[in-house]
Amino acid sequence: MSEMDALMKSTCEWLRGKGDSSDIVMSSRMRLARNIQGYPFTHRLAKDEAEDLIEMTESAVKHSSHLKDSWFLRHKNLSSLDKQFLLERHLISYDLASCKTDMAVCVSKNEAAAIMVLEEDHLRIQVLQSGFSLREAWEIINRIDSDMEQEVPYSFHQVLGYLTACPTNVGTGLRASCMMHLPALVMTKQVNKILQALAKLNLASRGMYGEGTQPSGNFFQFSNQITLGQKEEEIIDSLEKVIKQIVDHEREARQALISKKREKLEDHVWRGLGVLKSARYISSKETTAHLSMVRLGVDLGIIKGLDFQKMNELFIFIQPSHLQRKCNRILSSAERDSERASLLRRELKSVELI
Amino acid sequence: MSEMDALMKSTCEWLRGKGDSSDIVMSSRMRLARNIQGYPFTHRLAKDEAEDLIEMTESAVKHSSHLKDSWFLRHKNLSSLDKQFLLERHLISYDLASCKTDMAVCVSKNEAAAIMVLEEDHLRIQVLQSGFSLREAWEIINRIDSDMEQEVPYSFHQVLGYLTACPTNVGTGLRASCMMHLPALVMTKQVNKILQALAKLNLASRGMYGEGTQPSGNFFQFSNQITLGQKEEEIIDSLEKVIKQIVDHEREARQALISKKREKLEDHVWRGLGVLKSARYISSKETTAHLSMVRLGVDLGIIKGLDFQKMNELFIFIQPSHLQRKCNRILSSAERDSERASLLRRELKSVELI
Repeated sequence: MSEMDALMKSTCEWLRGKGDSSDIVMSSRMRLARNIQGYPFTHRLAKDEAEDLIEMTESAVKHSSHLKDSWFLRHKNLSSLDKQFLLERHLISYDLASCKTDMAVCVSKNEAAAIMVLEEDHLRIQVLQSGFSLREAWEIINRIDSDMEQEVPYSFHQVLGYLTACPTNVGTGLRASCMMHLPALVMTKQVNKILQALAKLNLASRGMYGEGTQPSGNFFQFSNQITLGQKEEEIIDSLEKVIKQIVDHEREARQALISKKREKLEDHVWRGLGVLKSARYISSKETTAHLSMVRLGVDLGIIKGLDFQKMNELFIFIQPSHLQRKCNRILSSAERDSERASLLRRELKSVELI
Repeated sequence: MSEMDALMKSTCEWLRGKGDSSDIVMSSRMRLARNIQGYPFTHRLAKDEAEDLIEMTESAVKHSSHLKDSWFLRHKNLSSLDKQFLLERHLISYDLASCKTDMAVCVSKNEAAAIMVLEEDHLRIQVLQSGFSLREAWEIINRIDSDMEQEVPYSFHQVLGYLTACPTNVGTGLRASCMMHLPALVMTKQVNKILQALAKLNLASRGMYGEGTQPSGNFFQFSNQITLGQKEEEIIDSLEKVIKQIVDHEREARQALISKKREKLEDHVWRGLGVLKSARYISSKETTAHLSMVRLGVDLGIIKGLDFQKMNELFIFIQPSHLQRKCNRILSSAERDSERASLLRRELKSVELI
């Protein structure tokens, strides 16, 4: 079994649907941008330097307790379908997925931790945790970072902090984010007010797949913009407070929907399930919209018999490259829509329409 | 139990889903326009004359074997909801349903025959049969007409034939029609061509509820326009030939869909069922569109476990006045949408999504 096959069969820690407020906060992510002393930034690296860095990283990860049992995937062994798959799995970025030159990615067996090698920075360490778990993610990434720092010399400046290819990351190199499912705030048309408030607080709002993606299926990813002039704990603290408030708003909006518009809400939820259980062709956009309603229905106890992990996984497993990797071939758009519909009917077979 | 309550619980002969080509021809209808000698036409009748005619009709129907065991419903005993119900049941016309003055309707116990009293003409005798059954309908209506003629003197002119309030009905007073379900001709965009051809043949195309209604849910009612200068048998003959051709076209279009676009067709059919089995609110327009797809699915053997009669009845039972009569009260539009959704879920519970 190839490493990619093994990865396809693994269970993502961050999709388990566990952790604080996991009904609203799907996952928490932490990433650190790091560069290695004595080498130019990624975009100016020579080929042999790039290989040096990949070698150094592969050797370094073996010394981190969180990464020693991991997959180390190199560019030459990854098809473009594999890279899209890793992107859909939230293990690499859009930029790295479309990169034509040397790159690599190290992925821990539960997919909770990963290091992208030769993305915009030499190393982008990330930790993904299920639910509202910024602290846990921070503790893990902090340990991985220390482990790595003992093996490879980081570019660090006494005043500026960690040096990065883009000035927006200089300092801590930290980006902390939460992926939130906010169907009630969207349905009650309050979400734009919240997005505007977040922009004033210098927090970025993105879609399910981070930078460059639009929110869809009522999923929003919120992250800090500032990396310089604040300690890591301060960054996490202030993000945590804001996320907590959004969680409260979403919870209130859900209660308001239930008490004032229960039947309309149930109509949305059950119709979503009805379509997913019956369609023979379905796009990922339509699927995501219906799954979002079904997830809300599961959270609110309207739909029974569907566990959170399966529910969360479906958002990922219905993506194009996941379907194609499962079929082991390139599929046309119509074939994907058909495979997606089959997968949904199979996975939702036991969930009854009542 | 009132006559209306009894009528609500009766089984409509024309919805049985039996008879020739009943997969495509839902029902065949025949109606005769008749007026009684010595009385002005309906719109010029005095109140006591109107009552005379209603009395005469009530007494006359007892002598017809087809109508002696029937309900005789008078205006004063019919609420406007009752009249809408009779309209939805295809037992009276739009005009009679909205009539504020004296009227009556005689309905046979299996609803195969009815006489509208004081519609545009004094008598509008109608026979409705399941499937493509113009001949049977003609035989029955012919007998009822003869029975009535022995009891009440019809206005008849040696040259013109039966005299009617509107010149378009003079002569035979006959309108023959078939209600056809043509989803494949609609989906393959051939139906407009057919409607144009029918207009040239002097055939009228209408919606499910006859004159003044638009086709919906892929149902079309086709009828003769000409009543003068042709014998009844000629009128029926020529309509029958045309309907036969449309049946063949629809059948070919269905086969083409199955052989060339099977998955797309199945997608439409199953999604329709999925929505009907899951919605909590649904309009009659949306319901009719989905039921049309489900009916096609049943006809083509895609959906199992749903008999034709139940399927045909659903088109009628989900109509507003049927829902309100069932609940025994006036419902708001939202309440109707909710009741309709409940009825559909209940009736389709045993039909599985596979």
